[in-house]
Amino acid sequence: MKPIPFISGIARIFAIGALLALGVSAHAQTDPLPSWNDGPAKQAVVEFVQATTTQGSPKFVPPAEHIATFDQDGTLWVSHPMYSQVMYCLDRVPAVVKAKPELKNVEPFKTVMSGNREAMAKLSMKDLEKILAATLTGISVDEFNTEVKKWLAAAKDPRWKRPYTELTYLPMQEVLKYLRASGYKTFIVTGGGQDFVRVYAEQVYGIPPEQVVGTAGGTKYGYGKDGKPFLTKEPRLLLNDDNAGKPEGIHLMIGRRPYAAFGNSTGDRQMLEYTKAGDGARLAMLVLHDDAKREYAYGPALGLPDTKVGAFPQALYDQAKKQGWTVISMKNDWKRIFAFEQ
Amino acid sequence: MKPIPFISGIARIFAIGALLALGVSAHAQTDPLPSWNDGPAKQAVVEFVQATTTQGSPKFVPPAEHIATFDQDGTLWVSHPMYSQVMYCLDRVPAVVKAKPELKNVEPFKTVMSGNREAMAKLSMKDLEKILAATLTGISVDEFNTEVKKWLAAAKDPRWKRPYTELTYLPMQEVLKYLRASGYKTFIVTGGGQDFVRVYAEQVYGIPPEQVVGTAGGTKYGYGKDGKPFLTKEPRLLLNDDNAGKPEGIHLMIGRRPYAAFGNSTGDRQMLEYTKAGDGARLAMLVLHDDAKREYAYGPALGLPDTKVGAFPQALYDQAKKQGWTVISMKNDWKRIFAFEQ
Repeated sequence: MKPIPFISGIARIFAIGALLALGVSAHAQTDPLPSWNDGPAKQAVVEFVQATTTQGSPKFVPPAEHIATFDQDGTLWVSHPMYSQVMYCLDRVPAVVKAKPELKNVEPFKTVMSGNREAMAKLSMKDLEKILAATLTGISVDEFNTEVKKWLAAAKDPRWKRPYTELTYLPMQEVLKYLRASGYKTFIVTGGGQDFVRVYAEQVYGIPPEQVVGTAGGTKYGYGKDGKPFLTKEPRLLLNDDNAGKPEGIHLMIGRRPYAAFGNSTGDRQMLEYTKAGDGARLAMLVLHDDAKREYAYGPALGLPDTKVGAFPQALYDQAKKQGWTVISMKNDWKRIFAFEQ
Repeated sequence: MKPIPFISGIARIFAIGALLALGVSAHAQTDPLPSWNDGPAKQAVVEFVQATTTQGSPKFVPPAEHIATFDQDGTLWVSHPMYSQVMYCLDRVPAVVKAKPELKNVEPFKTVMSGNREAMAKLSMKDLEKILAATLTGISVDEFNTEVKKWLAAAKDPRWKRPYTELTYLPMQEVLKYLRASGYKTFIVTGGGQDFVRVYAEQVYGIPPEQVVGTAGGTKYGYGKDGKPFLTKEPRLLLNDDNAGKPEGIHLMIGRRPYAAFGNSTGDRQMLEYTKAGDGARLAMLVLHDDAKREYAYGPALGLPDTKVGAFPQALYDQAKKQGWTVISMKNDWKRIFAFEQ
């Protein structure tokens, strides 16, 4: 083997250095939000991240304070025309009735058992609450997790014919990853059931159970026949994590004010207010469902009829403008909506 | 400059490799628990960490599941003869009475205002609850944080004449750091007030607020005169994080079963049971206060009179033996107790 001069060794080290530098620079210049169209919404996210994570920036935030909270239904995934957790509860009714046959002829279980979709669509909020309590409680935490996993693996959204867990918004998944890559800890703060969302949040959003805050009931510690301890889910509400319950839940479960918060409906109003009322740079964003073709368009802010789910009234739109929140137009700001679409 | 053969470049790369390998090996050989004497307690910690974090080990645990929970009072810091949070509440009474003069002649506030330590020591649990409710609630979350910080900066333990935050056990601080360096997420699960402990947990233990689970009350969202939203602490108990409340609190706030749990009294029994009842390698440890000289010795397991704080009855000792929990003897297992001691 021919001897190669020392300078060559140096050159190699430089070459490696240059490659590394190129890699870093290429990385820094890679668009972290490729599914977003250029515009004020994308710009708001990028400017916020740069301002709060760049050392020496006047708006720099100490890394320990990098907290970002996301509503789930309608903000991270499709919630129209019905929350998927409600679908789960309706699908669970036959198993509950089998275990407690006395419910068979009692409303609202009778209507659900009839399978009459039209009648089911007319169930009141109070009826739904009865169904939720019956299907989400009275079983152990482990049984509940097993049931939800089974359901998620089998259930499909009627429009896209895909598992619900595939109906997450790609642009929001990019925001989650971008924030985490920039040192933010991402939390879900959902009006949905905390235990329900925790079953899949890690796999679907990369968010571990301990970073999922949601509507939560109490559990009861007890012992099985084998002497092993277990927890039973009780119909005792501890946190109604919607509206004012969102900042209250954030205090209970996180203990500090977020620097960024994302929502899509009146249920997120207080979370966004609370976030934005903090000192320094704070980001508050609202997803507006204005894309009837690729997803859905609903809410009076569009002059369209309001619905039960994800209401976005004019008052919310006005408050967003007044308080400097950024409204994300699905139609204009999102290049792609789902990962499965090309 | 003389040309150096290619082989030298290779040698350099090897040399760097060897240095790196040495570095890693040197790191692995550094004792992560220098304040512990060799013995079964230290060994239990090290073996647990190695078994659950070494890829290929039959007891390897996926990194996302690396959860460890620690009681605080008597486990991470001194809680004898009185919880420091109770000291805080007693010290707050004059300010509360000043704001509400009608309390001046009402028990138990009258006794506290008298300054008669002997009479104060005789206050009942019910009296203490009244004092806790009056001093911990009815103010905003921000005011509360400010008051606790002020108190912590000024208050001193009567025996060591040092701030309470210096009275943490060095061997346990080493366990916290060792677990985190091994990829564990460390949580405090305390019977004490969640909001109280969160004020200093990050600075004192390196544990952020969102990883502190404790006895928690509700808050109420509202608006100040300036229109800014804020949260007020309410006397509405959401979680009594003691005894069975500990596994219930772990489910509520963390959402998965710990692999390791540390406690020191009957209040930790269910947390340790619940941890140990999980599959695979699980570590359950109890700190036994048997060092009258360097700290305190108390609890009937030592044939000593029980006290209100941190009871360690014989039944707990028996259960520990039966269920494979490790009892840590402060006297025998800890070389040093406090960082300020040489």
